[in-house]
Amino acid sequence: MSTTMVAPHSKRPIADDKVFAANKKAQEAAKKVGAEQVINSTLGALMEDDGSLSVMQSVMKTFKDLPDAEIAAYAPIAGLPDFQQAAEKAVFDEYRPAGHVRAVATPGGSGGIRHAVWNYMEAGDTMLTADWYWAPYKTITEEHGRKLDTFQLFDENKAFNLPSFKEKVEELLGKQERLLIMMNTPAHNPTGYSLTEEEWKEVLDYLKEKQAKDQKKIILYLDIAYIDFAGDMKTSRGFMKQFENLPESILVLVGYSMSKAFTFYGLRCGALLCLSSSEEIADEFMAAGTFSSRACWSNGTRGAQKLLAKVYSDESLLKKVNEERDSFKKLLETRAHAFVEEAEMVGLEIFPYRAGFFITIPCENPDKVADELAKNHLFLLPLGRGLRFAPCAVSEAKCRKSVRFIKEAMDKVNG
Amino acid sequence: MSTTMVAPHSKRPIADDKVFAANKKAQEAAKKVGAEQVINSTLGALMEDDGSLSVMQSVMKTFKDLPDAEIAAYAPIAGLPDFQQAAEKAVFDEYRPAGHVRAVATPGGSGGIRHAVWNYMEAGDTMLTADWYWAPYKTITEEHGRKLDTFQLFDENKAFNLPSFKEKVEELLGKQERLLIMMNTPAHNPTGYSLTEEEWKEVLDYLKEKQAKDQKKIILYLDIAYIDFAGDMKTSRGFMKQFENLPESILVLVGYSMSKAFTFYGLRCGALLCLSSSEEIADEFMAAGTFSSRACWSNGTRGAQKLLAKVYSDESLLKKVNEERDSFKKLLETRAHAFVEEAEMVGLEIFPYRAGFFITIPCENPDKVADELAKNHLFLLPLGRGLRFAPCAVSEAKCRKSVRFIKEAMDKVNG
Repeated sequence: MSTTMVAPHSKRPIADDKVFAANKKAQEAAKKVGAEQVINSTLGALMEDDGSLSVMQSVMKTFKDLPDAEIAAYAPIAGLPDFQQAAEKAVFDEYRPAGHVRAVATPGGSGGIRHAVWNYMEAGDTMLTADWYWAPYKTITEEHGRKLDTFQLFDENKAFNLPSFKEKVEELLGKQERLLIMMNTPAHNPTGYSLTEEEWKEVLDYLKEKQAKDQKKIILYLDIAYIDFAGDMKTSRGFMKQFENLPESILVLVGYSMSKAFTFYGLRCGALLCLSSSEEIADEFMAAGTFSSRACWSNGTRGAQKLLAKVYSDESLLKKVNEERDSFKKLLETRAHAFVEEAEMVGLEIFPYRAGFFITIPCENPDKVADELAKNHLFLLPLGRGLRFAPCAVSEAKCRKSVRFIKEAMDKVNG
Repeated sequence: MSTTMVAPHSKRPIADDKVFAANKKAQEAAKKVGAEQVINSTLGALMEDDGSLSVMQSVMKTFKDLPDAEIAAYAPIAGLPDFQQAAEKAVFDEYRPAGHVRAVATPGGSGGIRHAVWNYMEAGDTMLTADWYWAPYKTITEEHGRKLDTFQLFDENKAFNLPSFKEKVEELLGKQERLLIMMNTPAHNPTGYSLTEEEWKEVLDYLKEKQAKDQKKIILYLDIAYIDFAGDMKTSRGFMKQFENLPESILVLVGYSMSKAFTFYGLRCGALLCLSSSEEIADEFMAAGTFSSRACWSNGTRGAQKLLAKVYSDESLLKKVNEERDSFKKLLETRAHAFVEEAEMVGLEIFPYRAGFFITIPCENPDKVADELAKNHLFLLPLGRGLRFAPCAVSEAKCRKSVRFIKEAMDKVNG
């Protein structure tokens, strides 16, 4: 008798999550040599200089002060109506494009990606994203019997690689009726790159032209998990105005998350929004999303939804929250700037960093380099062709120190 | 150009959830005629006599007193280890069967059902459950390209219908390699029925015999959403000891939820557990479940996980929580008893109620009867062939009043 019970498609490797595994190593080292000697740059969460989690006090107090029943009760499947409205404000601010917007509550940013992959792809279809991507994109497509393919994010000058993007869109739309394109910007994970308004214009001009020619369906997914750490409102959201008046067959989906923006990672609250020039397509999105939610996690975290609704209905509270977040953002910028500056000084090559929690160093033999770095008690995430450093989790002084460790380790391993 | 963007399998009707729709009608009536005149028996949550949500104070206080970082930080994908241990204790108490147990955190009870339907069924397979069932079972199977079939829960004497169960298992195992059987007990939604230890023995004897004969795979899913309102520990969990020493090809899954047991509906926390005589199959469960979680909602509500871990590591707190829940349970029992007693008095036929949040009245033309009842400002959930009454949400006096309203409305509509 064979000792397997799962259906064949669900036979999965027994493997630790790479981020959590690297974090575990860092914690073990801290126990041995003391936390001050360890640089733990593995996790994608904002930390104080001492390595403890940064938590927005204005947010946590508002949450804990909610009436008990607002935390304990079920929310409606698609989310509280005032949460849906607040999510729309949080996503677009002053840059809301004209069109039909709908929102469905999701557990963090992940849930929205799951719904898009399931509802806007057929079995066996391929999703397109950049060659530097957040690993769970692959997990999510694999789980649901879909595939993932990539374009090159950067050309040889480290500029946005539009020709590679076009080539891949061509190729995939030649094979399937519908193409889901996953764009992680602004403050891309793992490189910290943000598409400029001009680059967005080129992307959209091309997609409109392509759609007019082929009459196929394009779903443009904007993963904005890090948007509130991507500069001011104009820098982070100005490009969204360009999403106005797209043809009906180009649907924009936006994956919003409270995880980073409200340091509310563990409360599992986000929203998937759609923007369409067609009301019918927006309603179709709502029906599919609500059905999918009922069939995966039922409903969302009510207290977190209520918190967002409260923040966006109270100007003085909103101001307070924004000020507190700005102070976190400033700390992050100082650290990242220190890393970038030091990298220039010692000649460490990095990808163009604009904003956000991560910086990527392209490198050969990343696993070996990471092992070498561990000897100096520096822990980060080895990627396929590089290293992900997380200034969100490390003090300014340690950021500077890390650059020198990384340069030395790369020189040693790769000669 | 056709105005549709979703993949064909995800074209869903635009429809309100039936429970939320009925609840909305009740709330509108309360605004018109006053809450005292309205009987809102639609929602599956425990309410005070005045219609406000019952919240366990010992639980909410412990939750709000957690360190901020324990609420704000991410939990590991599969859940905090101390949560997994606590969930095991919460599920089995003294009746833990020998065998290999694993637990994966899920958002409430729904998430675990999703994982089982996806991982333990192939596309097009059919899941088996009772003909009186919680409607989302169908939503979950439909979403994931699976089917649902039913056996008759009761025979003509309103006893558990073992022959119907056997017949359906025979039929489905004749067609597929693997059968997922969904058992909602104790305190079945919507009837309040609980299988007895003898009925469980008959079910398991049959499944063991059947598996030995056919050499196929049987996954027995126990949905215990209401277990902590299903009598004492022996009554609610004694039968679990029978799950010991099942063959490797009979895998037990248990869907646990904090929603009802801790009045923590809106915090979205539960766990899917497996019990197997094979360690390999338990590890396989863990790998598939962790992968699926990463691909749907990433991780769970950390604060709720920590709360459960805290309760089960502190005897005096556990005692306090159990005492508070017992007082809620007593209130529920008083109400349900009043309904059952009154039903006997006026000769209103109901299905055998043992425990839990719901009572079912078999009836012709349930939608018409529900419309008739709305005239008396009584709102409940019309099912396919009956009415679901929710004593969890209604005072004792209103429970008694409801019986008479229902009897009159049925007589009027069905003659």
